[in-house]
Amino acid sequence: MKLYHSTSSPNSRRVRIFLAEKGLAVPLVPVDLGQGEQHGDAYRQINPRHVVPTLVLDDGIAIGEVPVISRYLEDTHTEPPLFGRTAEEKALTAMWERRIEQEGFASVMEAIRNKLPGLKTRAVAGPHDYAQIAELVDRGAQRVRNLFADVDARLRDSAYVAGPQFSVADITLLATVDFAAKAIDVQIPEGLTALRSWHEAASQRPSAKA
Amino acid sequence: MKLYHSTSSPNSRRVRIFLAEKGLAVPLVPVDLGQGEQHGDAYRQINPRHVVPTLVLDDGIAIGEVPVISRYLEDTHTEPPLFGRTAEEKALTAMWERRIEQEGFASVMEAIRNKLPGLKTRAVAGPHDYAQIAELVDRGAQRVRNLFADVDARLRDSAYVAGPQFSVADITLLATVDFAAKAIDVQIPEGLTALRSWHEAASQRPSAKA
Repeated sequence: MKLYHSTSSPNSRRVRIFLAEKGLAVPLVPVDLGQGEQHGDAYRQINPRHVVPTLVLDDGIAIGEVPVISRYLEDTHTEPPLFGRTAEEKALTAMWERRIEQEGFASVMEAIRNKLPGLKTRAVAGPHDYAQIAELVDRGAQRVRNLFADVDARLRDSAYVAGPQFSVADITLLATVDFAAKAIDVQIPEGLTALRSWHEAASQRPSAKA
Repeated sequence: MKLYHSTSSPNSRRVRIFLAEKGLAVPLVPVDLGQGEQHGDAYRQINPRHVVPTLVLDDGIAIGEVPVISRYLEDTHTEPPLFGRTAEEKALTAMWERRIEQEGFASVMEAIRNKLPGLKTRAVAGPHDYAQIAELVDRGAQRVRNLFADVDARLRDSAYVAGPQFSVADITLLATVDFAAKAIDVQIPEGLTALRSWHEAASQRPSAKA
């Protein structure tokens, strides 16, 4: 299999970190987002939503959507588990991962896509054009701040987001924190000490460089 | 196990249809959204995002997020398969389900939550207040229309959304089409004959009444 990705894509980074935690070396195929390669005929055959990343299997099956790619890799490469081991652990891990994605990661994406001058007609990723809505910039940033406070409360009771073990939910949170700092200059406030400690530790894992 | 739900919640309907297709009879516990029961202390212990549905297991484990509930039910009640049988089929089904959810179902939700006078400070579901943004009403409706056109093209090549078998992706599409018609008066255009035929057939399944 191989992963179509971009080094500048935080969604691609989520999968790269996941692969690194699994100890999997998968060939990476760069997609040049700056040149619009994701909108070209060749890539649209691979991903009709025009987004990275996409995992392409040896028989040509193309799997898009980060949480789906992660779960597929988990199902086919079970060690070390990044969703837990039982059906219940898998469900709780996927639930936490999704909350962080929907409230946090997607909010950063919404803020930046509705802000960048180069994306005036591209406020939503995908095959269709949508005009930017300026009010979403501040709302997205506020959603991220609220998510940070909620996750800090969670991390006061739990070593990692989904429980006692590092999981895919931590990967999505790490990608969210770093994306928020870089793209919209939203940092973890000093008072959120549990989240800050968690972020410091997560950033020191070798996978964080992926 | 039991399902906390609301008869007026299209997200709850997605799980009810899924259960009906599985032939599972699960006790339903109503949550009175009109009275704000989802914001009360009791329900927040079950679901900190204040949303329905939540699946609560016999040991008290509470699973939120519709796609996570569906996958848990699939993992623990495998027949009939609603995600396909292999890891690859599961991935492709989850991918299609997510595309329809993110582009379609979530767009209807965004349009209606930013429109209803009763939700002026509740434009985003969850524990935090956000003011409505009027421009999202039209953008949400346009995203739904674009999704309908994209899915129509898909259904010209495929009997069901994710392939030759009815799946959870069809359930999410059915919930999306009916939600769009009811909540924001967006109907399937006459020219989208593949989607219209699919909808007519899906609506005739006994599960559609769930």
